[in-house]
Amino acid sequence: MTKPIKLCNISDYQSFIDKFDTFLLDCDGVLWKGNDVIPGVQESLSYMRKKGKKLLFVTNNSAKSRANYLEKFKKLNIEAYEDEIFGSSYASAYYLKNVLKFPKEKKIYIVGESGIADELALEGIRHCGFSDNMQTFKSDDIVSDPEVGAVICGIDHYVNYTKLAKALHYLKTNSDCIFLVTNDDATYPFKDYIAPGAGSIAASIIKALGREPDGIMGKPNKPMMDCIAQKFKLNNERTCMIGDRLETDVQFGINGGISTLAVLTGITAEKDFIVNDAPIVPDYYMSSFGDFSKLF
Amino acid sequence: MTKPIKLCNISDYQSFIDKFDTFLLDCDGVLWKGNDVIPGVQESLSYMRKKGKKLLFVTNNSAKSRANYLEKFKKLNIEAYEDEIFGSSYASAYYLKNVLKFPKEKKIYIVGESGIADELALEGIRHCGFSDNMQTFKSDDIVSDPEVGAVICGIDHYVNYTKLAKALHYLKTNSDCIFLVTNDDATYPFKDYIAPGAGSIAASIIKALGREPDGIMGKPNKPMMDCIAQKFKLNNERTCMIGDRLETDVQFGINGGISTLAVLTGITAEKDFIVNDAPIVPDYYMSSFGDFSKLF
Repeated sequence: MTKPIKLCNISDYQSFIDKFDTFLLDCDGVLWKGNDVIPGVQESLSYMRKKGKKLLFVTNNSAKSRANYLEKFKKLNIEAYEDEIFGSSYASAYYLKNVLKFPKEKKIYIVGESGIADELALEGIRHCGFSDNMQTFKSDDIVSDPEVGAVICGIDHYVNYTKLAKALHYLKTNSDCIFLVTNDDATYPFKDYIAPGAGSIAASIIKALGREPDGIMGKPNKPMMDCIAQKFKLNNERTCMIGDRLETDVQFGINGGISTLAVLTGITAEKDFIVNDAPIVPDYYMSSFGDFSKLF
Repeated sequence: MTKPIKLCNISDYQSFIDKFDTFLLDCDGVLWKGNDVIPGVQESLSYMRKKGKKLLFVTNNSAKSRANYLEKFKKLNIEAYEDEIFGSSYASAYYLKNVLKFPKEKKIYIVGESGIADELALEGIRHCGFSDNMQTFKSDDIVSDPEVGAVICGIDHYVNYTKLAKALHYLKTNSDCIFLVTNDDATYPFKDYIAPGAGSIAASIIKALGREPDGIMGKPNKPMMDCIAQKFKLNNERTCMIGDRLETDVQFGINGGISTLAVLTGITAEKDFIVNDAPIVPDYYMSSFGDFSKLF
């Protein structure tokens, strides 16, 4: 297996950046950690913009729409634009409309949060379920609705039994009802502990249904990359994914047939991919994305 | 593979009953369907009692305690006693106390309903979580509690994100915290539709935790049989499981090393086990448990 190339100095940084036109960037662990910007990040991004590079911020967070997620950039004083953000909620809406050609007369049942509802609405796709916030399950709440043509499940901090039962009912009884999951993250870091992720909410529906989803959108899966490639007409040879997680970010780049750069400011350490039997190896790695600021 | 023996007439019924001292009985699909008693059931049970047979009613329903479940028998006018009922909520409490010797100073976090809380209380085991009915997740709700020594997950029509996050937090951070699931049923029939079962609620925690439970109590798993065998000092040679489901009831009997009788008043049809490559085959089968009433 080829060893990854380490970017160590200004000359490495320059020749790396010259190789690509488009950079897909993970956010948490690359640009910031929690509420703290990683030093040099603003300057690194500015340098890339000055060089005419296309930047796309790719996140599995389905709770937020692109507009919501942009607020995080503003709060941290990082330059970004709504059209540069590609979240799993938007990817789901884009995929339904442009890849699956979801019929106008059908609607989506959401087990998830406002990000999904907002992005579906922006694509002109009708939805329901988002307001099913009943605390107690009543059997009468489960009524058939033949208009539901797909169920989307994402992270849902308001999940309840009624939502799970409705999702199951539609998927079991509506013919050709599509089952999409925004991302398969089992957990996510929340303040100082680990909380269940979208993949854990979806696991309930998968178990009850007895089959896998028709599509899992988020990194490392192919559907999100297909949407990005279709929308932005990527040239794979000139595109690089930059992230801190091997299983999601680097694998996403590998699955999509583009180059990959791992940074060591998040989850992954050098030892995780430098060993001989490492299952996932990036093409390049460097200490911090902020180090590109040395070119500025 | 040995073909199952069909019980067809009074002589078959008599010699079958003479072979055993103890009968474990599934309820829904054997004794009743929904709210209707299957004809002849009361007389069949009376005959067995008259012959001095020990009867045990074994259910995966974890929402109810034995006392709650007895009310169903009363409503349907079927003779039964609390000590004859063995539900997965009671099995969980019994297993913790008598098999795992759960320490007095520890407590259980419940993702489930009153049946589990009631049965734990009756065994003198402290519990919490049952009243965590918050509709909205607040990060401050997740606080460490080193006294939690086990998490039990069962069917929970009041499930919410906070419960799932707390369960995960205790299992991840409390050393040796035990993870029990009352039963692995993916779904259960609810009125005229199929609703998510205990196994589907547990699937969220399993996915987030990244490992299987330390024990799954209900049929067809061994822990419930171990509890029954320990409490009632079963003689396997003289015990038979009677049920309508091959995957739960008949497999439960096979796993427990006792004889099995399938009835055709519920889920299973003769064709499901009479074919050559049937994966689960009972020792005996008959049209209806109510047919034993012909002996009466």
